[in-house]
This record gives sequence, C-alpha cells and structure tokens, in this order.
Amino acid sequence: MSGTAGKRVLLAARPLGEPKESDFRIEDMPVPQPGPGEMLLRTLWLSLDPYMRGRMSDAPSYATPVAIGQVMEGRTVSEVLASNCDGFAVGDIVFSPNGWQTYAVSDGKLVRKIDPALAPISTALGVLGMPGMTAYTGLLDIGKPQAGETVVVSAASGAVGSLVGQIARIKGARAVGIAGGPDKCRYVVEQLGFDACVDHRGGDLPARLKAACPKGIDVYFENVGGSVFEAVFPLLNNFARVPVCGQIATYNATEMPAGELRTSAVTRAILTKRLTLRGFIVSDFAARHGVFLRAVSAWLREGRIKYREDVADGIEKAPRALIGLLRGENFGKLLVRVARAG
Amino acid sequence: MSGTAGKRVLLAARPLGEPKESDFRIEDMPVPQPGPGEMLLRTLWLSLDPYMRGRMSDAPSYATPVAIGQVMEGRTVSEVLASNCDGFAVGDIVFSPNGWQTYAVSDGKLVRKIDPALAPISTALGVLGMPGMTAYTGLLDIGKPQAGETVVVSAASGAVGSLVGQIARIKGARAVGIAGGPDKCRYVVEQLGFDACVDHRGGDLPARLKAACPKGIDVYFENVGGSVFEAVFPLLNNFARVPVCGQIATYNATEMPAGELRTSAVTRAILTKRLTLRGFIVSDFAARHGVFLRAVSAWLREGRIKYREDVADGIEKAPRALIGLLRGENFGKLLVRVARAG
Repeated sequence: MSGTAGKRVLLAARPLGEPKESDFRIEDMPVPQPGPGEMLLRTLWLSLDPYMRGRMSDAPSYATPVAIGQVMEGRTVSEVLASNCDGFAVGDIVFSPNGWQTYAVSDGKLVRKIDPALAPISTALGVLGMPGMTAYTGLLDIGKPQAGETVVVSAASGAVGSLVGQIARIKGARAVGIAGGPDKCRYVVEQLGFDACVDHRGGDLPARLKAACPKGIDVYFENVGGSVFEAVFPLLNNFARVPVCGQIATYNATEMPAGELRTSAVTRAILTKRLTLRGFIVSDFAARHGVFLRAVSAWLREGRIKYREDVADGIEKAPRALIGLLRGENFGKLLVRVARAG
Repeated sequence: MSGTAGKRVLLAARPLGEPKESDFRIEDMPVPQPGPGEMLLRTLWLSLDPYMRGRMSDAPSYATPVAIGQVMEGRTVSEVLASNCDGFAVGDIVFSPNGWQTYAVSDGKLVRKIDPALAPISTALGVLGMPGMTAYTGLLDIGKPQAGETVVVSAASGAVGSLVGQIARIKGARAVGIAGGPDKCRYVVEQLGFDACVDHRGGDLPARLKAACPKGIDVYFENVGGSVFEAVFPLLNNFARVPVCGQIATYNATEMPAGELRTSAVTRAILTKRLTLRGFIVSDFAARHGVFLRAVSAWLREGRIKYREDVADGIEKAPRALIGLLRGENFGKLLVRVARAG
C-alpha cells in the first residue's frame, strides 16, 4: 500500500462556540511504515461522538484536549494491512483509536480484534461499543430501574439514548424518550418500542413531558442538560436516580447563563426527594465490559435490541458531520465510512 | 400527678418566611390519664431541630406537616410517671416523640428505654440520637471518606456537623468546617479537633475556603445550601460525594431566587467531575441504627467524640429558641429542658 496517499484531519483552531469547518484542516498523509512490533491499519469506520467537542477545547475536563495541529482523536474499526505485531495478521478487523485518519501505525496495545461473524463490524463503535456500554452501565449501575418504574432518556434516538430505553423496557420499566422533531419521536416509539416520546422542539415541554409520565420519573438518563433537564427535574419522584452522561445542549456554550446560580432549587429537591445525581464516564465502569458485551450481543441476536446508523461517506466529511451532530442533525449513531474492507 | 397543670405548644399559623412567636400558641393542658396498655410520660428534654421548620409548612416534603391547632412535633427524653404498659415501669427514662408538651400518654410503640448509666440522657436527642445517626450514616454510607481525603461540613458546630467532622478525623480524613462567627470556628478547631474552620460570615468565603482546602474537597456534607453550597461546589474534586442532609439557609425562604435556573453549571460539573449528589433522610438508614449506636457510644466513652449542648429552660422558651436555631444563633445541639427527673 506504500505510496498510496492517505488523508487526515487535524485540529486547526479551538472553536469559539459552535465549531466551524475552518477549525479543522484536512491534509494528505503518506502511508506510514510499521516498525518492529508494529502493524499498519487502514481505517474503515470512524465514530463521531459528542465527547469530541470537549477534546477541541482546553477548558478543564476529564481528558486532555487535542493539541492544535494534532490529528483529531477518534475510535475506529480498521483492517490490518501489514503486521509485525504478535497476535494480529493481515486481514484482521480490529477496534483501534486511530483518530481521524485513513491510516495509522499501532503497537497493538489499544487494539482489540473484532469477529465479523458476530455482528456488522460498525457495531463495535455503536451498540456493541462505547455508546452501548455507556448506556448499559449508566442505566443499570447508576439508574437501577425496577419493573414498573418510569425511565426517561433524552437524545432518545441517538446511539446511547436508543439503547437506554430498550434496556429499560427489557427490565420491565416504562421507557419515555425525549428527542428533537417528529421523525425521531416516531422512530423511537414505532421502531424502538418506547412507550412514549416527547419532542423537545414542540413547545411547552414541561406539560407534555408530565402528560407522558403520569406516575412521575424514577430514572432520568441525562444526555442533554439545559432546558430539557429543567423540564425533567420537577417530575422526579422520591428516590429517583439521575445518571448524568452528557450535556450536549451546553457543549458549544461559551459561557454559563448570567444571573444567580439558583442551585437552591436543585439542592432542595435533592434533599426532600432523596435524589441521587451521579456523573459518570464509561471508563469508570471498565471492569463491566465483558458483562455488557455478553448481554447486549445476546439481545441483539435475539432481535430485542435495534439500532440505527447515520453514515457520512469519506473522511473529509467528518468535520461537517460533527458540526451537525452537535446541532442534533444526525439520526442514529453517527459514523464516517472511511474505506471498505478487502 | 393528676391535677397538676401541664403546658403544650401548638402550631397557631403557618409562618410566611421566618417564623414569629405568634405562629405558636402556648396553652395549659390537663395531665392526661393513661388507659389500659398505656403509660403517662413527663417530658424532661425536648429536642429542637431544623427539620421542624418544614413541618410548619404545607409545601410538599418528605413528611406530613403539623396541622394548625395541633401540638408541634418533637422528639423528647421523658420519664415514666405511671404505666399500664408492658415493659415500662415508673421511673424509667425513655426516648419518645411526645411533641412540644410537658406530658404525654403513649402506648409504647414509638418509645425506647434509655440507660442513664451509659451517657447523659440528653444525648439520646443529640450525639446518640437522630442528629448523631444522621451524621454517621450520611458521612459513612454516602460520603465514604477515605484516609487522606478532605471532608468539608457546613453548620460545623451544630449537632450534626460537629459529629461529621469528628468521625471524618477518626477515619483519617482532613476535616474542614464552615460555621457562622469566630467563636464557633474557634470551638470547631480547638475543642472538636477539626483541621480548619472557615467563617461564612467573614467575607469572600470562596477564597478562604479554597485556602483551607488546598487539595480540593472529596466529601461535602451539605447542611446549608445557598451561597455556602455555591462556594463549595467549584472546589469539589473528581469523584467527590455530596450527602445532601439539610438546606437550612433556605428553610425560611418564601420563594426561590428569580431568574434562570442555571442548572447547567451544576449538571455540567456533575458530569465532568463524576460527582455524586445524594439527598437522604436519617430514616432511610433505619437498619443501621444498631451499628451507629455501638460505634458512637464507644467513641464517646473513649473520649474521641465531644459534643456541646445549648439549653433553653422551660417549654415556653421553645418557640423563640427554634426561631434562633433557624438564624444560626444556637451554639451546639439545641435542647429545651422541660423538667428535671425524679
């Protein structure tokens, strides 16, 4: 493959507010040569996820930001093109954090083989990957839904939210989604089997959410923040649990809203209703990976879990696709098809 | 004793904002006669606690409010004056929720005998009672302090806060108090052995708290809310735990501050720092009562735990004393000495 030009996407500037395409730089790259103990990977699928907005900023967070001029960080499904690496052979399909580039060299440390016979390989970035595990652990280890309880999840048609509601149903809970627009809401109810879905763009979210949750809310799986959180919060029942997974409504915010913090409204409810609010990152539950993979793979095989992918073609489409993701334009797990295997 | 007039304190009106003495009515009462299976109790000590403000309102809460014209609710240490009740004899000293009255009749169901040889009987309302158990379970079951961590507690000289910091020290953590005024702060450090105490009335609480917590805050035991919470919140470390026990700064509030909720500042930090905020009521941990009592009694006997009582004399002083408690005027566990035993 040597000599074939590759492409990579660098972070060109730290976005102020919503990222612009000019915050990224696409450049050609030579196909790298694997040294001893290394292998050459070709990216097939690149996953685009909301957390990437955080890596573009240097605000304090749980992870180091991508440096200016550095390749954008990202998880991929890749193919082994050449290998000096024990345990990996040409043609193997692997999960690897290559970043936004068509080729990468790896020593195999962060790489895991994928069995293409088990499920479509792209699911290693979605329902069987980080988003799936985020849904599984956040819901079951923090949310702990009981049969008959009401579970609400925001961004319900997305990679994480869609699985949260379906697992809630499997556990016997009532699943209510919040999503943006009638098409997504229809999909969430008709295809994913949620009991209800409320369009947060449809006006008077608090009243319509209340109508969809006549017995209040026992678990709120929080992906969004802002006005969606504030519509949910007063409906929480005593002893409700709130796994805080994402805050996509605020990722492009340049500053918090002005005025008093008004935390009292939150802390007072936490007290009187004995709420639990707990933030988590999927890596906090790394030890649960095997359990997650067995459970969700089985549900997938049995047809109890559905998923939807939203695919952009070609790595040069990645910047625009990520901008759209942060606007809620994607419909399902957002992926970039970088190359086809073989 | 029949014929001796007693006194009781009724709720006369629901307070708007800070309670006034006219929200209570003190009246004479006849000494009641115990029927079959009942006993007559004389109140020796009445406990005054912040939760009582909640019982005076009919805003939604975790407990039913006291009705207008009803005797104010309250825990007491009492003496058995006459008994037709199995297991209780004249002269026994008991814990009993008599309410704000000098005499009560009980069927024994909510009554527990106290051994006066173990500790001063008033401690059954403080360090060995509900406030002690609140501190013990909230700190250890939710806060889970580890050796070397920093534990901050507000209302640090109070019945709950003073024990939280002392238990944190026993567990090898660094204990930092927040209290109102230099006398309380001095007591917290010099008598209770906290590592530091910050006066929330001293101006620029955020900066002085930060200086007192150079390694950030791992556990914040929340008794206060409002601006104290908002000074603590930015200093919370990753994986910090916040047992939300009280919100005394807001108990007299007639409305939440105007303006946007601004929950985003809270939920975003919960996410990126993986915080846990959890409200609790001591009764949620009822099963831990035996463990608590054995542990704290032992620490008390060994001199590892100190406590301080603030005593008002006579039940007619109770309304004014409760008003002062909500202003932070008490210094130590607030009790009303209603009568002396014997």
